[in-house]
Amino acid sequence: MGDPGRGYISGVQVHEEAHRVLEAAGATVATAESLTGGQLAVLLTTVPGSSSTYVGGAVTYSTELKITLLGVRRELVESVGVVSAECAEAMATGARRMSGATYALSTTGVAGPDSQEGKPVGTVYVGLAGPTGVISRELSLDGSRGELQAETCRRALALLVDVLRREVPPVG
Amino acid sequence: MGDPGRGYISGVQVHEEAHRVLEAAGATVATAESLTGGQLAVLLTTVPGSSSTYVGGAVTYSTELKITLLGVRRELVESVGVVSAECAEAMATGARRMSGATYALSTTGVAGPDSQEGKPVGTVYVGLAGPTGVISRELSLDGSRGELQAETCRRALALLVDVLRREVPPVG
Repeated sequence: MGDPGRGYISGVQVHEEAHRVLEAAGATVATAESLTGGQLAVLLTTVPGSSSTYVGGAVTYSTELKITLLGVRRELVESVGVVSAECAEAMATGARRMSGATYALSTTGVAGPDSQEGKPVGTVYVGLAGPTGVISRELSLDGSRGELQAETCRRALALLVDVLRREVPPVG
Repeated sequence: MGDPGRGYISGVQVHEEAHRVLEAAGATVATAESLTGGQLAVLLTTVPGSSSTYVGGAVTYSTELKITLLGVRRELVESVGVVSAECAEAMATGARRMSGATYALSTTGVAGPDSQEGKPVGTVYVGLAGPTGVISRELSLDGSRGELQAETCRRALALLVDVLRREVPPVG
């Protein structure tokens, strides 16, 4: 596996690879986005035939929508904040539950220009919920607001591809 | 008002104008997207300060998610289909209810490459729910898949701007 952070795995864009491994596994994915504001959804829907693996998701830009739509607990937001591994995991878990998809990816973090909850710009968490549980990754990214969003999408999709390859080993 | 279909109103991009008229009205908007797959959310979140007017929304790519997440009635989908004014209006109404936003915009239609429900590529419906009710517009668009999606976003945002200007007249 190449460096998933660059957006390519063996020359294939990571959102195309995500579609391919999901299709091979007969699995689907949903999304729950905060700082990426819909970009993960756009990437997943640009792949031809994406409707067989991508069901949709939520753009929960406001904290309130994370609570009401995805079921993130208010106490969690008030104690550890929305820029946290716990929030990323709760968003992914909520998106998986509300969509019925096999997996759900989430993104939350600080895209800038200002810091948030005392966390510097570039502090990002991606979450992944699936049949075996939920995980998250903390990222420290550099770049403009647009670059941070694009890199967050690539890392989230690379996490999905990585987990799917381990949970669903390629045949023969 | 210039031609909103071109994406500009008096030289300002229509998503920036949407943010401005919402802010002036103290109003917020949510989104419910099918064929635009998150592009409306991305446009709205690129405006600096967008979190004061955009709360988030849903990308309901699958029919099932339109039903479970937005509360579109299954009978409606089975009778008139998802490529319909009725579905666009139900999606907007559902997004407004689940988000608590003042307004909600929706998009549904045929982006191609194949026709859907017997409707040709380019058949699009945009919906807008607000304090005074819900409306929709039928569009017949030309172009590539990407062009259809971009034009749908522009028309949806232009509809919001148009309605806001009539419901909330600019101060003298």
